[in-house]
Amino acid sequence: MNAQKVKNVGVIGYSGNPYETPIKEIAELCLKLGEELGRRYHVFTGGRDGVMELVSKGVKSVGGFCVGVLPWEGEDSNEYNDVVIKTGLDFQMRSFILVKSVDAVISVGGEIGTAIEILAAYANKKPVILLRGTGGWTDRIADVLIDGKYLDNRKLVEVYQAWSVEEVLEILERISK
Amino acid sequence: MNAQKVKNVGVIGYSGNPYETPIKEIAELCLKLGEELGRRYHVFTGGRDGVMELVSKGVKSVGGFCVGVLPWEGEDSNEYNDVVIKTGLDFQMRSFILVKSVDAVISVGGEIGTAIEILAAYANKKPVILLRGTGGWTDRIADVLIDGKYLDNRKLVEVYQAWSVEEVLEILERISK
Amino acid sequence: MNAQKVKNVGVIGYSGNPYETPIKEIAELCLKLGEELGRRYHVFTGGRDGVMELVSKGVKSVGGFCVGVLPWEGEDSNEYNDVVIKTGLDFQMRSFILVKSVDAVISVGGEIGTAIEILAAYANKKPVILLRGTGGWTDRIADVLIDGKYLDNRKLVEVYQAWSVEEVLEILERISK
Amino acid sequence: MNAQKVKNVGVIGYSGNPYETPIKEIAELCLKLGEELGRRYHVFTGGRDGVMELVSKGVKSVGGFCVGVLPWEGEDSNEYNDVVIKTGLDFQMRSFILVKSVDAVISVGGEIGTAIEILAAYANKKPVILLRGTGGWTDRIADVLIDGKYLDNRKLVEVYQAWSVEEVLEILERISK
Repeated sequence: MNAQKVKNVGVIGYSGNPYETPIKEIAELCLKLGEELGRRYHVFTGGRDGVMELVSKGVKSVGGFCVGVLPWEGEDSNEYNDVVIKTGLDFQMRSFILVKSVDAVISVGGEIGTAIEILAAYANKKPVILLRGTGGWTDRIADVLIDGKYLDNRKLVEVYQAWSVEEVLEILERISK
Repeated sequence: MNAQKVKNVGVIGYSGNPYETPIKEIAELCLKLGEELGRRYHVFTGGRDGVMELVSKGVKSVGGFCVGVLPWEGEDSNEYNDVVIKTGLDFQMRSFILVKSVDAVISVGGEIGTAIEILAAYANKKPVILLRGTGGWTDRIADVLIDGKYLDNRKLVEVYQAWSVEEVLEILERISK
Repeated sequence: MNAQKVKNVGVIGYSGNPYETPIKEIAELCLKLGEELGRRYHVFTGGRDGVMELVSKGVKSVGGFCVGVLPWEGEDSNEYNDVVIKTGLDFQMRSFILVKSVDAVISVGGEIGTAIEILAAYANKKPVILLRGTGGWTDRIADVLIDGKYLDNRKLVEVYQAWSVEEVLEILERISK
Repeated sequence: MNAQKVKNVGVIGYSGNPYETPIKEIAELCLKLGEELGRRYHVFTGGRDGVMELVSKGVKSVGGFCVGVLPWEGEDSNEYNDVVIKTGLDFQMRSFILVKSVDAVISVGGEIGTAIEILAAYANKKPVILLRGTGGWTDRIADVLIDGKYLDNRKLVEVYQAWSVEEVLEILERISK
């Protein structure tokens, strides 16, 4: 871990069976993202299946560290979490604890829950990196950015767009200075 | 109150000083919306200033009933709430209690907090009516609707678009059948 | 409603079937408490069965007003709530919203959930009135009061003991001055 | 870490300046507790000052691992937390996330917040070990145990009493079988 500002990175995205569409199409990307993040940062996810599981698997494959911030009583934790936080909150309310606890958020595809997490990160002034080309709300939200980088007129924090894992890492490094 | 399915209606939108732009430009609309809703439904808002205050003022001007679901300890309640719920939660987390407690949500303008409320309503399967032409996220979200009425591929509930208070009332009546 | 400081009163206590022991033994007391409170205050409860239901039934029998602050999605609301708040939180976390939203709390019997509510009220500086003789934690907590009226050394607010509904009303009136 | 059922242990107790009464009188005990727990378990605390800070200092002095579950935005984290969870919730509501996330809870002294945490642990069926002789609610609650070990008639889980750090460790080992 470098002595840098960004220490804890959250990853959000599609939930669901990782071996079914649309997640299986981005499975390699998620594993790679997990590996690269796992070498550099503590990785926080919502602790469940889908993108969360694949990224965490990647993190653990390189000996990294995963925190899962789970809804309700944490029953559906995947097997890759070093620390499981059981929030007692529903899916969306628990997302706010996830974004508050990290320094930056990376978004991969995703349905309504991911959309709420993108906005929650922005509302909590956490930089969001959209991993473009992964579909869902990660691509959809890019269409409504103000000045190409804000989610409202208050311009609370910047939303970044990356087209590869390498670009995600570059942005993380840049915002850590 | 009719014997209808929709009994409790939430109104979300811009917070801030009601006598400054952009809120003052839609002040008359908010008052009228409050009056019409106040004659038919219990009206729930986030209990604070901006659109919340103007709509609630309208509700009370016709003898209607307002519930304010407030963040933190409820210090910033406007003067029009009959019941004040002090949630102890931050601005956004408390929004989930607001949308869970109503049968439908009407959106008027709004910055990031309103965007989260629109998505929160949809995620909780509550019909959302966008009062178009009021700016902010109410208009912006319309651009990314799937099939013109959904907020993700799960098609959890319909998002409606109205261009006047009359149209809002018609939609509410229609979804109450 | 008098122009008094205490406007909203919370009632906490045993949950469970109101027609079984131990609740059935205090059913008349709960109904009477509800009637008397309903003539004077807005009554807030946890919105479910047991003491909550009996008190709310009493409130409604005199045309009073009930707010139910419910766990999860509010599925188990009793039939006497005028306003139902669906908190999305578990049984105990939702209790904090209940005590924050009222000016004073009356405790009737109760198991662990009631104990947490008594302490939650005190931690939030809300006066608690123990209706003694009703069993459970309402009587048990009386044994560990510091100086007969505090729940910790910070002496945040007073805990009162009443042995009848009349005494409860007197105390409420006294602390409203 | 042994392959045992108890992996994550929570420690609750007095907040406040660790170098002032009453905390300074039990400072050595807290450090020792931290050292012994740190060699065996992941240690979760509320992440702030007082007992939390002293125990975490002990944990880190032996190379152990600390998770701090903090209120609000986590501003007041002590310097010994490896993972900081920022819950956005008030002091007491965040305590529920702490107790839900661990396998057992150890209580040391404490005012009202600690009392709520003891009851929260019990309500969530987490075994509680009272470190007796440390004052506050840890000793006070012992006086109202039902059958010497339960906190209500539902007998959800056992409350244990230990008079030394060694005894705490023995109990943890026993309940891990």
